[in-house]
Amino acid sequence: MAESMFLLWGSGSTPSWRIMITLEEKKLQGYKQKLLSFEKEEHKSKEVLEINPRGQLPAFKHGDNIINESFGACLYLENQFKSQGNKLIPDNPAEQALMYQRMMEGLSLYEKLKLVAFYDFFVPEGERHDSALKRNKDNLVTELQLWERYLENVAADRYLAGGFSLADVVVFPSLACSFAYGLSAERYPKVAKYYNLLKDRPSIKATWPPKWFLIEQKSESLKDI
Amino acid sequence: MAESMFLLWGSGSTPSWRIMITLEEKKLQGYKQKLLSFEKEEHKSKEVLEINPRGQLPAFKHGDNIINESFGACLYLENQFKSQGNKLIPDNPAEQALMYQRMMEGLSLYEKLKLVAFYDFFVPEGERHDSALKRNKDNLVTELQLWERYLENVAADRYLAGGFSLADVVVFPSLACSFAYGLSAERYPKVAKYYNLLKDRPSIKATWPPKWFLIEQKSESLKDI
Repeated sequence: MAESMFLLWGSGSTPSWRIMITLEEKKLQGYKQKLLSFEKEEHKSKEVLEINPRGQLPAFKHGDNIINESFGACLYLENQFKSQGNKLIPDNPAEQALMYQRMMEGLSLYEKLKLVAFYDFFVPEGERHDSALKRNKDNLVTELQLWERYLENVAADRYLAGGFSLADVVVFPSLACSFAYGLSAERYPKVAKYYNLLKDRPSIKATWPPKWFLIEQKSESLKDI
Repeated sequence: MAESMFLLWGSGSTPSWRIMITLEEKKLQGYKQKLLSFEKEEHKSKEVLEINPRGQLPAFKHGDNIINESFGACLYLENQFKSQGNKLIPDNPAEQALMYQRMMEGLSLYEKLKLVAFYDFFVPEGERHDSALKRNKDNLVTELQLWERYLENVAADRYLAGGFSLADVVVFPSLACSFAYGLSAERYPKVAKYYNLLKDRPSIKATWPPKWFLIEQKSESLKDI
């Protein structure tokens, strides 16, 4: 199965990482893959554009089926390989509701994280405002405080929505990125506990990004959050 | 079943509308619901915050299960009521891949739409830049041109991913919003054709927003896109 899959990915791209964790969890190792460089603009190359007209990474194919959107790819892989590897969408209605809720809230976390960690990357110099960056930081703090509450009762076998699930697959990379960019474990102890609980999970360890997207900003942009 | 569901919604909120269309498609009419006013800040009321700590609409409950994120609620409802009403996730792997891909790309359309249609609402006066608004407009044009391509072969019984699916449920409200805010049917003929094909579908007609979010901007903000 995995041989008919092809992933073009970027190191430090959390959407790429989500698909890679899912492939590991579903025992789909052995897929074809290629690491491309954002710095060299390889995400705008013909090779990527043929699969992903948005010129973004990841670009992912299973046979002739293309699913570049990471949330979509994770849902697709779980549905196509339900009985293989770990089950990532719980059957129990209460856990399933919580799984979909936290999974999709992961988008809010990711968006708010980007608007702080990569503010200078997304906003041209003449359009930057201290007031905007401060508001973005306040929004990220509010967001992280929400996750502190959500993670209040995290335990070694209970993650965001019961057992390990797609909610963890999509949320963990954003939190790992946050700590890589200097987030304080002291100010967000529950988030840090969850991070430490999951960081050595085989699917996550095997796919850890060799470098982060903007390595020069590492340890800086989130240190006062 | 529907009697144990409760939806707090806002008129013109496309995320609210997505859930309402899904409930119609799954024959879950008769759910409890309440229309709240954004203008009166009712989305920040205790009633909403008890279900949705983000203070956003929709706020949705099925029994004790809370799924406020519209994409999550749509996926949950389809999974919980698979054999009831219309099937919204295709079984065929190629159609399913395309469904998840287009569904999640719907988020990109929605985000780019908001950054133009509601620019003044999201960006405080002192932080606005013509260059930023122009870039947002260019991004929206590029996005809409992508959808023009995706919709090239739309037919009366073939929508975004084969038969009517969750991809249509989440994308249609953004396109309807675009036309309500003045998008040109001449410049986007395929999008307009798709809009006209779907606008009288019973689930959509029954749930059409009585008014749009910011009625005073209607017909204005997208007219030169």
